[in-house]
Amino acid sequence: MDTDVEVFAPATVANVGCGFDVLGFAIHRPGDLVVARPGPENQLTIESIHGESEGIPLEIEKNTAGVAAKALLDHLGERRGISLEITKGIPIGSGTGSSAASAVAAVMAVNEFLGRPLSRLELLPFALEGEAIASGGAKHADNVGPCLLGGMVLCPTNANIEPVQLSYPETLHAAVVLPKLHILTTKARAILPAQIDMKTAITQWGNVGSLVAGLLQNDLTLIGHSLQDVVAEPYRAQLIPGFPDVRLAALDAGALGCGISGAGPAIFAICNGNQTAFEVAISMQKSFAKNDLESYRYISPINPLGAQRTR
Amino acid sequence: MDTDVEVFAPATVANVGCGFDVLGFAIHRPGDLVVARPGPENQLTIESIHGESEGIPLEIEKNTAGVAAKALLDHLGERRGISLEITKGIPIGSGTGSSAASAVAAVMAVNEFLGRPLSRLELLPFALEGEAIASGGAKHADNVGPCLLGGMVLCPTNANIEPVQLSYPETLHAAVVLPKLHILTTKARAILPAQIDMKTAITQWGNVGSLVAGLLQNDLTLIGHSLQDVVAEPYRAQLIPGFPDVRLAALDAGALGCGISGAGPAIFAICNGNQTAFEVAISMQKSFAKNDLESYRYISPINPLGAQRTR
Repeated sequence: MDTDVEVFAPATVANVGCGFDVLGFAIHRPGDLVVARPGPENQLTIESIHGESEGIPLEIEKNTAGVAAKALLDHLGERRGISLEITKGIPIGSGTGSSAASAVAAVMAVNEFLGRPLSRLELLPFALEGEAIASGGAKHADNVGPCLLGGMVLCPTNANIEPVQLSYPETLHAAVVLPKLHILTTKARAILPAQIDMKTAITQWGNVGSLVAGLLQNDLTLIGHSLQDVVAEPYRAQLIPGFPDVRLAALDAGALGCGISGAGPAIFAICNGNQTAFEVAISMQKSFAKNDLESYRYISPINPLGAQRTR
Repeated sequence: MDTDVEVFAPATVANVGCGFDVLGFAIHRPGDLVVARPGPENQLTIESIHGESEGIPLEIEKNTAGVAAKALLDHLGERRGISLEITKGIPIGSGTGSSAASAVAAVMAVNEFLGRPLSRLELLPFALEGEAIASGGAKHADNVGPCLLGGMVLCPTNANIEPVQLSYPETLHAAVVLPKLHILTTKARAILPAQIDMKTAITQWGNVGSLVAGLLQNDLTLIGHSLQDVVAEPYRAQLIPGFPDVRLAALDAGALGCGISGAGPAIFAICNGNQTAFEVAISMQKSFAKNDLESYRYISPINPLGAQRTR
């Protein structure tokens, strides 16, 4: 107790095609690190932020990690002084769960620092509270859930249902390509209509059902066919230059399915095997390059562990 | 060949709570019977309709069985004369897949009569065509799919996805209670809005995902919590006097979940075990009786076989 604790929280791909706001999975890299150590008495402070930290405020009440950690401390009635050091490995506004990772790493670091008063699952609402300040107040656990718990996680908004960890074919790999563009989650959300056609909605929940079935039944073809978002992607695609070409490039290179990761601009492809995922990522990058967009790529199996204490 | 063929097609529960238009399961009884036998050359005729047949036309092009059988014969380029005899065991306008059962029994009887040129799955589009004339032209396979294939069947409207047969806990039983009311599918459909709130839609597809997960993972609690239809039920419930009380009666008697079967007025409850299903059905009937509504009850495990040749 009262010694330094460090937690790594991984990037996540939310929505996963049709599962808008309710489905996500964790990848291995990139990720955020949060160190919790003894700080000035009766205070929670953020002493420093490193890495991809441009524009991230240090004030507790404006920082996702700060809000999340404070919510946890308030819940616990805990007054010990804690100082947080944040290292951002995940670019903000990338669509790969940057805010969620900071919030998760913070609550887990604080929880470990305090001797683990709460279980992992019990930390979820506090991480969500932190993430919400970055996503315009909406509380969807499709990033926080898989970041905290690991794996492929379904997070229905039905209050009676806890996050559901789904099994999946072990060979599944994600190719995530992040163009050098910045999209604010709040803008990507504002672009969506408040209402959708019943017919469109029926197609979406049919796809969600068959995606879950495909994952649990190890049916790669069904997974691929189900990875169609008819609700958010038609709107958000316009924020990403060349999206249709990148998607086609991924499918041509052998991806089972491809879509926008979270609110974008990162694009993910689900592939069978590491080698295919690598080739798919390269093809997607080449396609972005035709629009003069540089990009990063991340290749990863689904990360079954989620956030981990690293010190 | 060219001898009498008889096919039994069972009643089905469509929607199954949240799976509006995409999910259904078969029960054992009631069901429709269709006999196909040699008829006047070059003609498809319906020689008679028995049972719960009030108001069902004999003309091929106005009868769900006739339209379905004709669509199949046209597809096969078959000119042999066939005469159909239909026995309706499923009340029409009950919400238990009466039209679907007649259409399925007809195409399967004709297919058997002709020496089985098509597989069961290949018969689906022709049965759908027949059923569509009773449901205002909409083609949803959530009754036809489970009636034809048996079991619990997900039928996404995504054209790339074939019906998905879902496994389920073996102890699942349905209590289906049908009050003496008549609701036209077309009316129950017209009452629904053309657009729904994004937020509502997200809740619905979260529930669909967790219902599929609950079924495949044998998680009775998750199945129960997921059986919530926030899209159609709020509108359709008003067509069924006392629906909220009947639903509560089912849950109080131990049902995992309860909702409107198809377009109603039948109400289904999913229960763990035959005895609970029996007690739940009795409770639901008592609740209907308070509104002076007599009712039938059907207790059944999920019917894994679907339509069957019986002669």
